[in-house]
Amino acid sequence: MTAPADLTDRVLGGEHAAIARMLTFVERRVDGIEHALATLHRHTGSAHVLGLTGPPGSGKSTLVTALAAHYRRQGRSIGILAVDPSSVFSGGAILGDRIRMTDLAGDRGVFIRSIATRGALGGLSRATLDAITVLDAAGKDVILLETVGVGQAEVDVISAAQTVAVVSVPGMGDDVQAIKAGLLEIADVHVVNKADREGAVKTVAELRDMLRLARRRPHQWNVPIEQTVATSGLGVPELADRFAEHLAWMTQHGERQRRDRRNTATRIRWLAEQLVLDRLRPGIPDFDDAVDDVTARRGDPLSAARRLVAQL
Amino acid sequence: MTAPADLTDRVLGGEHAAIARMLTFVERRVDGIEHALATLHRHTGSAHVLGLTGPPGSGKSTLVTALAAHYRRQGRSIGILAVDPSSVFSGGAILGDRIRMTDLAGDRGVFIRSIATRGALGGLSRATLDAITVLDAAGKDVILLETVGVGQAEVDVISAAQTVAVVSVPGMGDDVQAIKAGLLEIADVHVVNKADREGAVKTVAELRDMLRLARRRPHQWNVPIEQTVATSGLGVPELADRFAEHLAWMTQHGERQRRDRRNTATRIRWLAEQLVLDRLRPGIPDFDDAVDDVTARRGDPLSAARRLVAQL
Repeated sequence: MTAPADLTDRVLGGEHAAIARMLTFVERRVDGIEHALATLHRHTGSAHVLGLTGPPGSGKSTLVTALAAHYRRQGRSIGILAVDPSSVFSGGAILGDRIRMTDLAGDRGVFIRSIATRGALGGLSRATLDAITVLDAAGKDVILLETVGVGQAEVDVISAAQTVAVVSVPGMGDDVQAIKAGLLEIADVHVVNKADREGAVKTVAELRDMLRLARRRPHQWNVPIEQTVATSGLGVPELADRFAEHLAWMTQHGERQRRDRRNTATRIRWLAEQLVLDRLRPGIPDFDDAVDDVTARRGDPLSAARRLVAQL
Repeated sequence: MTAPADLTDRVLGGEHAAIARMLTFVERRVDGIEHALATLHRHTGSAHVLGLTGPPGSGKSTLVTALAAHYRRQGRSIGILAVDPSSVFSGGAILGDRIRMTDLAGDRGVFIRSIATRGALGGLSRATLDAITVLDAAGKDVILLETVGVGQAEVDVISAAQTVAVVSVPGMGDDVQAIKAGLLEIADVHVVNKADREGAVKTVAELRDMLRLARRRPHQWNVPIEQTVATSGLGVPELADRFAEHLAWMTQHGERQRRDRRNTATRIRWLAEQLVLDRLRPGIPDFDDAVDDVTARRGDPLSAARRLVAQL
């Protein structure tokens, strides 16, 4: 059977079949995946990772498709990751289906994938961060990360992006307004999609008021509000311009590196945790001895944990 | 402000105010709680930890109250922990309210507490295990652990008990039967409560069939089915006898120690994880240097994690 390490060269060469296989290894956390990701890591850092989130019905998938088409016209290669924390077990492919119906179908410059994990909370954030590593190393210029839903899991996932766009639509009810408050903090760009609908002006005005209340310190990024009609592509080039401006601003103000450092810190902590737990489990003699001591009340759990960590 | 370590002597003396305070420290994971728990740990191991679980409406709280009254008549001291994973944020006190209406109200031999945690999944299992340490060290002879609900979180919480009772009632629908399958594996004793209701004989027969299908290997505990009417106390002394028999059987067959070892292993792993993560965070120079290296692609996350763990 193919091991992750056998695929790294092909991933670095941008081969879609190898990317797909590697992402399956990421989801399943097969043996050797960490080594492969470590190799790939050194080839990352050039993609612009865009995150799109917002309530169901806001047209995120259509917007992602329109953005992908726009970037393709510019000759940039695209990776698309759809993450749906609420359906971790199903691994829905709705976005893929949508795109297969467009001009992007069969375009070798576009790689599309839904991310799902069977496992604990946090597993999805980790798989997302690792999937970004794979696509970035594979040479994708733009990575579009779409999350469905509006909970904390979505916020955790989307925070892996460099530029986060929160998508609204005109005429949302009060419920959606309440949900948006949590997303407001992480928005680098606001998008009012379906802007040809009645109420678009009002939605833009409400967002502007919310942003004014949350007015930021000097030298902070001034969060723009863009209007789009994703189905026709209206406003999409302007939205892409805002994304590019945000990336330039982040680079200039050290924010790009700050976000990169934050993701790196998260990765290292996850890996360290895993290394420790792999070595502290039944069947490892030192661990079994410690469990015996503590069970017999000759020792206590804290001292045992300290000793074991010191011996690692 | 009182620190956890200041309270350990009073907890060991069985003082309810100190126990209550310590359990608040456990829920909030205040500084020093691990030290206090380490001290208390050496005084544990004599309580019988009983877990009661089952679907809503099965009368678990009434049964817990009846069992507590029974044990009190035998002169044994009681600790009661009510854990409701579905209301982690509210910390409901329904069980406490119920007991305050009975003869147990004001009984200094009974300590009652609802356990809630604000935090990640797993936090509740950990708080439950630690709360058992506190009550055991405080000299409670019997600890009654009640969980509401029937999901995996409940199974995780209840597995902290030495003897697990799964409570059913006559006339449950198919849904409840489906849910019970997950609980069947962890049941040491089955209780058909509200056994004066129509259908009790049928429910007992169904449980017997289920147990027969899951027939165990020789030298395994023969899971009994007890019928109770918790409101009148009918069958409660017999149920308590089964619990005592299970404890004796576990002690004789090494199963008591096996479960104790399993809980100890879990505790040590949690503590080791926490020790590692406390030392691998922004602001710790070695960690910050590693993050710099990996962010600059001079290193990779896996090598950095390995080096940091080796240096711990």
